[in-house]
Amino acid sequence: MKEFTILKIGGNILDNPASLESLLDYFSRMPGHRALVHGGGKIASVLMKRMGIEPLMVEGRRVTDPATLNIVVMVYAGLINKSIVSALQSRGCDALGLSGADAGAVPAHKRPAGTVDYGLVGDVDTDLIPADRIARFVDEGLVPVFAPITHDRAGQLLNTNADTMASSVAIAMSRKYQTTLVYCFEKPGVLMNATDESSVIASLNEPQFLQYKAEGIITAGMIPKLENAFDALRKGVSAVRICGPEAFLKTGGHPGTLITLNTLAS
Amino acid sequence: MKEFTILKIGGNILDNPASLESLLDYFSRMPGHRALVHGGGKIASVLMKRMGIEPLMVEGRRVTDPATLNIVVMVYAGLINKSIVSALQSRGCDALGLSGADAGAVPAHKRPAGTVDYGLVGDVDTDLIPADRIARFVDEGLVPVFAPITHDRAGQLLNTNADTMASSVAIAMSRKYQTTLVYCFEKPGVLMNATDESSVIASLNEPQFLQYKAEGIITAGMIPKLENAFDALRKGVSAVRICGPEAFLKTGGHPGTLITLNTLAS
Repeated sequence: MKEFTILKIGGNILDNPASLESLLDYFSRMPGHRALVHGGGKIASVLMKRMGIEPLMVEGRRVTDPATLNIVVMVYAGLINKSIVSALQSRGCDALGLSGADAGAVPAHKRPAGTVDYGLVGDVDTDLIPADRIARFVDEGLVPVFAPITHDRAGQLLNTNADTMASSVAIAMSRKYQTTLVYCFEKPGVLMNATDESSVIASLNEPQFLQYKAEGIITAGMIPKLENAFDALRKGVSAVRICGPEAFLKTGGHPGTLITLNTLAS
Repeated sequence: MKEFTILKIGGNILDNPASLESLLDYFSRMPGHRALVHGGGKIASVLMKRMGIEPLMVEGRRVTDPATLNIVVMVYAGLINKSIVSALQSRGCDALGLSGADAGAVPAHKRPAGTVDYGLVGDVDTDLIPADRIARFVDEGLVPVFAPITHDRAGQLLNTNADTMASSVAIAMSRKYQTTLVYCFEKPGVLMNATDESSVIASLNEPQFLQYKAEGIITAGMIPKLENAFDALRKGVSAVRICGPEAFLKTGGHPGTLITLNTLAS
């Protein structure tokens, strides 16, 4: 089975031009089949402020109303996606930008309103991702660059968490390839102490995660990222790593956190 | 040789939801290989105004400075392109949105500054359009939807006239298919009298065009559209038609203007 790497780059890296350039340099020279998934960065919030759109927050989380959706579609699927595609093309990497609507690549359904209605937010229908089609793009030498926008196949675009987008695509592609998922973000890995960047956990399995979560060691934004990681491993992805740009670039620093399912790997 | 139709829809149609829906209904049910090229519409100007970006005009024409480029990339390659792709997907039409950077689909070079420097505007390098690759997308059943954004292959996105985008892609695809180019806009065709919609010219050849241009009958925005049309015919496109949505939808009204090169066809 051929290998496939999915690199997810977070918003903080997108907001740092030097970091982003280095990553794109390295990514474009990487051998083998690969795809990139990018998040949002600060620009969507900046644009909303300039346009006088108030962020709609419910229980501390952003709600995607129609005006907000238009902004994230413009910024994620337009400006950020095309800037990355163009930058990769200039490096000889044959990038193809895809929102979830393009070629029906990432179908989703609107998250049902529970205690909170998040609005136009999509939960990915992973089983419906056309892995064969994406594999044909990849086998032709194209490098998909996914923006975290999905569609409900009934004409509605939806805002989707980029980490989830990455794990969903990784799960789907693991039907065709031996797939590695790398979450690259501004920290050197999963930390035992959020304020100490030297406290990277080298290897983390699910029982440890549940324990650290219960103890309040792993909190906030890291929890959904890790839940996505374990979900990916359970559903066929071969390896998941959470690391900083230095580790991905192999330019020293901590190699990041290897995520594993079983208790023996710790 | 298989047939291929490229439909270009203008900004005024994009600004009219009922017109756009009808066109997408019809386009999605059309048999055969096809692609769509869309223009901009009013939304880019509205957004610029809301963001306090002053349109930069030189000799009556818009100049694309970096702030303007960001807006048109967001609006054309983001919001408009993904809305159309999602709408087509919901109609069972397997649309794939492409800016000129995606898969290197439409390379261009920055227009050299002459008496006017138009800024980040791209003139298409038609010979470098990868017709084989686009044909592989099309033969797989995908329907490309082009946004009028190109790239210089050195990392710079460029703003490109949508009519030129359409004729350039049509010329490139005519190497692979018997290609028809349809410019669909808000008028029923090329008019003898700009204020009389019943004055559609049924067939227009190049000598007639030059004569009407000299006489001031054909003016303004129609001139570059027709120059693109004749260029397309000279370079291999089989047929060019300029018409209103009713003609494209075959729901009555005038069938539009057939553009021909030779004097005999008039």
